[in-house]
Amino acid sequence: MKNLKGALMFAQSGGPTSVINASAAGVFLEALDTDAITAVYGAAHGIRGVLNEEFYDIGKEDRKELELLKYTPSSALGSVRYKLKDASVDDTDYKRILEVFKKYNVRYFFYNGGNDSMDTCNKISKFLATSGYDCNVIGVPKTIDNDLFGTDHCPGYASAARYIATTIMEINLDAKVYDTPMVCIIEAMGRNAGWLTAAAKLANHKGLGADLIYLPEVDFDLDKFVSDVKNVCAKNNGKCIAVVSEGIHDKDGKLICEYGASVGRDSFGHAQLGGVGATLANIIKEKTGYKTRGVELSLMQRCGAHLASKTDVEETFEAGKQAVRAAVAGETDKMVCYVRKDTENYEIEYKLLPLELAANTEKTVPLEWIINDGTDISDDFVKYALPLIQGEAKAPLEDSLPRFAKLKKVFVEKK
Amino acid sequence: MKNLKGALMFAQSGGPTSVINASAAGVFLEALDTDAITAVYGAAHGIRGVLNEEFYDIGKEDRKELELLKYTPSSALGSVRYKLKDASVDDTDYKRILEVFKKYNVRYFFYNGGNDSMDTCNKISKFLATSGYDCNVIGVPKTIDNDLFGTDHCPGYASAARYIATTIMEINLDAKVYDTPMVCIIEAMGRNAGWLTAAAKLANHKGLGADLIYLPEVDFDLDKFVSDVKNVCAKNNGKCIAVVSEGIHDKDGKLICEYGASVGRDSFGHAQLGGVGATLANIIKEKTGYKTRGVELSLMQRCGAHLASKTDVEETFEAGKQAVRAAVAGETDKMVCYVRKDTENYEIEYKLLPLELAANTEKTVPLEWIINDGTDISDDFVKYALPLIQGEAKAPLEDSLPRFAKLKKVFVEKK
Repeated sequence: MKNLKGALMFAQSGGPTSVINASAAGVFLEALDTDAITAVYGAAHGIRGVLNEEFYDIGKEDRKELELLKYTPSSALGSVRYKLKDASVDDTDYKRILEVFKKYNVRYFFYNGGNDSMDTCNKISKFLATSGYDCNVIGVPKTIDNDLFGTDHCPGYASAARYIATTIMEINLDAKVYDTPMVCIIEAMGRNAGWLTAAAKLANHKGLGADLIYLPEVDFDLDKFVSDVKNVCAKNNGKCIAVVSEGIHDKDGKLICEYGASVGRDSFGHAQLGGVGATLANIIKEKTGYKTRGVELSLMQRCGAHLASKTDVEETFEAGKQAVRAAVAGETDKMVCYVRKDTENYEIEYKLLPLELAANTEKTVPLEWIINDGTDISDDFVKYALPLIQGEAKAPLEDSLPRFAKLKKVFVEKK
Repeated sequence: MKNLKGALMFAQSGGPTSVINASAAGVFLEALDTDAITAVYGAAHGIRGVLNEEFYDIGKEDRKELELLKYTPSSALGSVRYKLKDASVDDTDYKRILEVFKKYNVRYFFYNGGNDSMDTCNKISKFLATSGYDCNVIGVPKTIDNDLFGTDHCPGYASAARYIATTIMEINLDAKVYDTPMVCIIEAMGRNAGWLTAAAKLANHKGLGADLIYLPEVDFDLDKFVSDVKNVCAKNNGKCIAVVSEGIHDKDGKLICEYGASVGRDSFGHAQLGGVGATLANIIKEKTGYKTRGVELSLMQRCGAHLASKTDVEETFEAGKQAVRAAVAGETDKMVCYVRKDTENYEIEYKLLPLELAANTEKTVPLEWIINDGTDISDDFVKYALPLIQGEAKAPLEDSLPRFAKLKKVFVEKK
């Protein structure tokens, strides 16, 4: 545990969320008020900004705009999908990071992201330590997927869940409006973890949810799906609402979205998913003759900040502040995490978890919560998720449209 | 002009909107307090409910729930897409309507819908008059498409526009987050009228809009589109956001969505559209190699009541009340419409328009508002639309999720 004096470098990585900037706001506002931190930098486009020596001087920003970051969706500094090689294979990038950190006396490095980003953060932390360069490295979690190990839930998840639940309630009313059969298949994000799809259950809890919910934690069988939909329609005047995760796959591991269209792969080798709702809508139409509609919640579920959960915004903001306090107190190589207290009313504590535990381990929905032959979620999920989506927190309005943060983004002059 | 005493029948038709039930609330609450109206009925699934003698006794509903209808999306009574034949060809349905109206002493008939519904309403009105049955018939406008003739704007449009503008602002931040090229193509509803797509311009007005906007009022040329996108990307680090209407078509009238996939037709003979965003995203990907994403605003744009415009909700509610007052004062065969006053601050008057003028005439976006070679909208649109989206009005929250109206829906006993 070393107490260091120097600059702080903060970077955002991976897919953005509605509230990722709330962590940035927490880090920036806390760091600007911390004596040990001599300058606050925000890397442009994650680790690439460090490698390219492109980062913003956060000290030049208006504090009012930094406060507005709490309600501004997407990564304000820009994000990146860039996988560092293992240092044992190729340490070029690591050496460059060390060089940049030395040049600007960066003694605090914070990486804000999901599984892959925690892996990146962990590798950098280990390399810096091995190199003997004193720099406290903290991972700040972020992912709508809610799949980071070691934390009760992930910053960003609850706002996406609130968006999904609210939107499904509205779609429920819309999709059932005609007196003719209609099957609506809604697609939520989530490759391997069904947390986002499970959020449909919150809409069910309010009586306006989905008839069928399919998570990627269990194998998906197309014939069974067709039969499930037919059974619901038979009982329900031809109406059925199904919510499916983009990552549902058959017992051989083949993605259901691949049944319909070709897909690409991103730089981490993940298949670029999407279109499973439309694919299934077409299949059901063909097999039943019913009118169908595939609805993809698409980018909206991760950027719909106007429906952010206040609980999520405040926790995410605080996670940023906690990261600064921990680092300044000498902590390093850790990720901030949430631990839910065993109290009657929902409460959390902020703790630190070794980065290697957080990196690359995916936390999926417990199999025992997936019920009714893989078509429903138990109330355990509602008990878990409902406290997380409480409260509203959104940008002030200007002409009744959101007034998001406007950063000056003044680059630090290259040395 | 006849002052009649009897029951009121209200029915909802066509695609629902976020605020269509606000008109229902206005009609119901006003009618329940009006002496000349002896009973208030809500037809289940539009005109089909009348034909099937299936309608709800609104007098049995809790007034608090009727108030909540103002903030409850989709047609609470159920909607229908059913085209009445011309009475000169086949008057079976008209005779049946007359029979039902006589049986229940229905002296006020209100039909709530768009172009097709105003046509239905007009036909019924004319038939009843020819038959010598005294019944005051009023059309209550509703359409997110904003394409009804004779009214400054249509109930429901502004809430959809506010949804679209807010969502595009959020997507703008999300889609530009990476340091790699990304073309995002957002699809809005609107077959022949581009009003919804034009709402993207409100996001542009706030600096977070679309680079390119294509309306169905003008022919769409695929090669020019590819070139437009390339030009934007060249100037803009490979980033481009385009918003297109589902109804864009080439100079031969062929729908662009038909370039990609097969489509069906609904009972009015309209092509069932959708997928033009995905189609264009695939084409751009193929032609440029850039990462692309097609985003369909789908049902959410018409049911996203959590983003409803207060101005829209209040006007739509008042349109329902005005309809009752006009009918009771003896007006018939008219549609309620909005006339914008020539005042500095936005203000409207409620007027009545003969139904035959409203029926089947589509009001499209003025061609002179479509600028920059068909890729942008002029500020005239902003001046027109910005006042309409002002204010927030949404359902109260329960567990931070919307508490929509819960109607008892007690059927009137068949006579």
